[in-house]
Amino acid sequence: MERPRRDDRRGDKMTDLHVYDTTLRDGAQQEGLNLSVTDKLAIARHLDDLGVGFIEGGWPGANPKDTEFFARAARELDLRNATLAAFGATRRAGGAASTDPLVRALVASQASVVTLVAKSHTGHVERALRTTLAENLEMIRDTVSFLVGEGRRVFLDAEHFFDGYAVDRAYALEALRAGVESGAEVLALCDTNGGMLPSQVADVVHDVVSTLGLADNAESRVGIHCHNDTGCAVANSMAAVDAGARHVQGTVNGYGERTGNADLVTVVANLQLKKGLEVIDGHRLAEATRISHAISEVTNVPPYSRQPYTGASAFAHKAGLHASAIKVDPDLYQHLDPKGVGNDMRMLVSDMAGRASIELKARELGFDLDASDADDSALMQRVLSSVKEKELRGYTFDAADASFELLLRHELDGSLPEFFTVESWRVITDARGEADALSEATVKIVAGDRRHVRTGEGNGPVNALDQALRSALAKAYPEIEHLELVDYKVRILDAAHGTDAVTRVLIETTDGTTTWTTIGVAANILEASWQALIESVTYGLIRAGVPPLT
Amino acid sequence: MERPRRDDRRGDKMTDLHVYDTTLRDGAQQEGLNLSVTDKLAIARHLDDLGVGFIEGGWPGANPKDTEFFARAARELDLRNATLAAFGATRRAGGAASTDPLVRALVASQASVVTLVAKSHTGHVERALRTTLAENLEMIRDTVSFLVGEGRRVFLDAEHFFDGYAVDRAYALEALRAGVESGAEVLALCDTNGGMLPSQVADVVHDVVSTLGLADNAESRVGIHCHNDTGCAVANSMAAVDAGARHVQGTVNGYGERTGNADLVTVVANLQLKKGLEVIDGHRLAEATRISHAISEVTNVPPYSRQPYTGASAFAHKAGLHASAIKVDPDLYQHLDPKGVGNDMRMLVSDMAGRASIELKARELGFDLDASDADDSALMQRVLSSVKEKELRGYTFDAADASFELLLRHELDGSLPEFFTVESWRVITDARGEADALSEATVKIVAGDRRHVRTGEGNGPVNALDQALRSALAKAYPEIEHLELVDYKVRILDAAHGTDAVTRVLIETTDGTTTWTTIGVAANILEASWQALIESVTYGLIRAGVPPLT
Repeated sequence: MERPRRDDRRGDKMTDLHVYDTTLRDGAQQEGLNLSVTDKLAIARHLDDLGVGFIEGGWPGANPKDTEFFARAARELDLRNATLAAFGATRRAGGAASTDPLVRALVASQASVVTLVAKSHTGHVERALRTTLAENLEMIRDTVSFLVGEGRRVFLDAEHFFDGYAVDRAYALEALRAGVESGAEVLALCDTNGGMLPSQVADVVHDVVSTLGLADNAESRVGIHCHNDTGCAVANSMAAVDAGARHVQGTVNGYGERTGNADLVTVVANLQLKKGLEVIDGHRLAEATRISHAISEVTNVPPYSRQPYTGASAFAHKAGLHASAIKVDPDLYQHLDPKGVGNDMRMLVSDMAGRASIELKARELGFDLDASDADDSALMQRVLSSVKEKELRGYTFDAADASFELLLRHELDGSLPEFFTVESWRVITDARGEADALSEATVKIVAGDRRHVRTGEGNGPVNALDQALRSALAKAYPEIEHLELVDYKVRILDAAHGTDAVTRVLIETTDGTTTWTTIGVAANILEASWQALIESVTYGLIRAGVPPLT
Repeated sequence: MERPRRDDRRGDKMTDLHVYDTTLRDGAQQEGLNLSVTDKLAIARHLDDLGVGFIEGGWPGANPKDTEFFARAARELDLRNATLAAFGATRRAGGAASTDPLVRALVASQASVVTLVAKSHTGHVERALRTTLAENLEMIRDTVSFLVGEGRRVFLDAEHFFDGYAVDRAYALEALRAGVESGAEVLALCDTNGGMLPSQVADVVHDVVSTLGLADNAESRVGIHCHNDTGCAVANSMAAVDAGARHVQGTVNGYGERTGNADLVTVVANLQLKKGLEVIDGHRLAEATRISHAISEVTNVPPYSRQPYTGASAFAHKAGLHASAIKVDPDLYQHLDPKGVGNDMRMLVSDMAGRASIELKARELGFDLDASDADDSALMQRVLSSVKEKELRGYTFDAADASFELLLRHELDGSLPEFFTVESWRVITDARGEADALSEATVKIVAGDRRHVRTGEGNGPVNALDQALRSALAKAYPEIEHLELVDYKVRILDAAHGTDAVTRVLIETTDGTTTWTTIGVAANILEASWQALIESVTYGLIRAGVPPLT
């Protein structure tokens, strides 16, 4: 049959590998993830900035929210790099694609690419779809042909392909052949249940590419869609590309049902920085960390600190042994330059680390210390003693970068800017019978020449203290309004003494651009929380460049 | 040279693959993870339950905490499956192993296995270790020989092996050869910087196995130690085993520096359930989810819900399409039966585990339930629903045996003995200037026909509440004097909302003979603590056989 016209080719990059993002569709299947249309538009803009070739926006027709997304995208989204794809399914059994309302909704979405999910597993055709094997093939042919005739590029998602291949290889290949012969440009092999290992994926992809004649110069191509149920989503995607796939699907931050989809940034970074394939523009990849975190803000799923390449800990070093060697040559202890993905090396200060970590951390903060200089060496010794002394009492600076920076600044400058002094604070929590407990805090502080007494309420004592402190500081330091407490962690140390033990509190704060963590340690949990709150605010005001009134 | 005596062979399993856990050493390098000696002992017991062959406990001599761990382990740990390994380094350049204090500390630790980190990368020898290539080989030979002579099994961790191999293959192999010839039983190839991809790992392992003649029946074996910087730690470990490695290192929950180490449970589950190798006892693997979460409780690192196999979402389904098909046949939409790793399609206590523990616990309480009896079965169903409903709200009964028993008694008897009713409680915490904060609690309760109003003071709000409650109950129930609160744990759930989130409190109480744990969950941390306190006292009075006055 004649090939369809395909005038929109922006998704095809120089190495001719499709980078196909499905964060907005398959990623949104993640437990606890709920995206509004506005959220989806915001994420699409981030994905375009990242330089992916295709953005799968959702299933118009099946889901009113997704129908609205495509309508608004047509008006509001001005994509510079990516092509929008609409997801849908082959027509119903026994019908015709041209009159199937869901298929027509795909055309109506105006997306130039349509990705059709199709069955290729005999068990799923017979038991889930409940139709015949022959009719399923006809559904693929009819739907693909119709959409191609409507001027769409059609990609086929062969659902449960690997499991289907294991059960009935001939039929699985037949389903793909029905797609190719009808004009599908991509045959994405889906490991829908996520149970595959790299060697299996490699074998199957290799077989499909050679049996169907889909090597490099063919008009249609094989794609790959992996889930992480064996912890191998990234490796499976890489194995497929090695075996001849030229289209990779994934999601940002590996969002997705169950264990998630292949993390697209990790796959791209591996292909680009490890294997030397230029799949997206290098300067865009260098935005990956920022974009990954920006998308976390939209989804409200806390970023995973151990995420490869973009995680907050991905280039963080704790061992003292490492730190001293890193000073000699950072490349001895990192697998590549974190700048390639817009991340940074960070030294964690803990009792394991020594002078080298402090020197590096100081450099990160813009202070160049020289261990061979006597003054600098004495200063480092003071910082080290202070850190060790505090860590003995339960502090842990590897998790509290902002508190460490305050400690370091204190030693470097001799003091810290004092924005306010605390006269007193008090929290009352009470409950009557079965009613919920309520907390009320009163703080008395002096900022400049004024005394501020304020009360805050909250559903917990720390929440109430936070409210009262903000209220008391708002006049003197309006910048405090931009600070938001985003995480609160408590750990009881020295468990042998029950509630008499020392409590460690970590508070994470954001100013909308960046986040920082402060620590408090005290016998009293509220005192520890108060210390961490005070440091969080002090750090925030220093960052904002506010001069102290006192 | 003569092979050393090796009388402790418990780490060798039926398929002759070492499962080597390094959670306590390399895992503890994770940002924010800080383990006390007691924590480490608790984790070691969980690892032994999981059935790993080896537990690397730490670096005795280099770290006082680890020295203490080995001393206490020798007295307190009664491992049934695992062998304890001490981690250390080759001796200092220019010295002798027999007089090196750090090497002697390894012998003093009494661990029968010593894992020695050694350099195999020329750049690291010259720039980080700052010695000659020849001396490094001599350090390996001397240290391995000395320890073997002391009757230890010696495993060698070839640090930066893959990077070193790329720079100077001959030297990297020479370092391994120095180990084998001196009697090292394992040559663990470490991807220390974590930058490798599976195909590279496979090629290098294959080369090492064939060049050094370390195939299946050789006395020494190749091992693998991976980090997740390319998202391929699990796949790299699998690729190494495919290529001939017979020793796999990893950590529970993939803890570790930067992006973490290979997740040992995922690797084992892949090898066992996907590739059919029996590397640990199947009934132990079926405890993996429980153990993974129990270890999270000790580390206080929130469990990652998308973690393969053991994550709360790992077998959770959201897509409506899937849900209806799952009813037809669950195997259509899951890659394997979650029971194999003790997980479930829901994220709560699994139906199987739930029923079994209910039956067991009921028998303990003197109620013989029979699942085939209709009444008993209905009762179990009620308990199970109640547990699931509470777990949805943040409760976790795995860690709160006493609260679970109270729930069960409530269903069995229709009600619980009511020792007292709470009219109200209140806590005030305040601090003035630099002084320590003080807490004061007042509780009003009714026991029998008397109302008791008492105030307690403490260095923290929960401590004050505990004091006030005891004081108020002392007249009515003098038995309360024997109860002591020994541990208090707090976890903030749903971290996205900072201090607005739900708080889970676990309280451990002892009566001098036994200890029990109760749980409280509420938005307000003090309310959650109060709930757990009340249950702790109620349980203690029931245990003491005290009749309620009311």
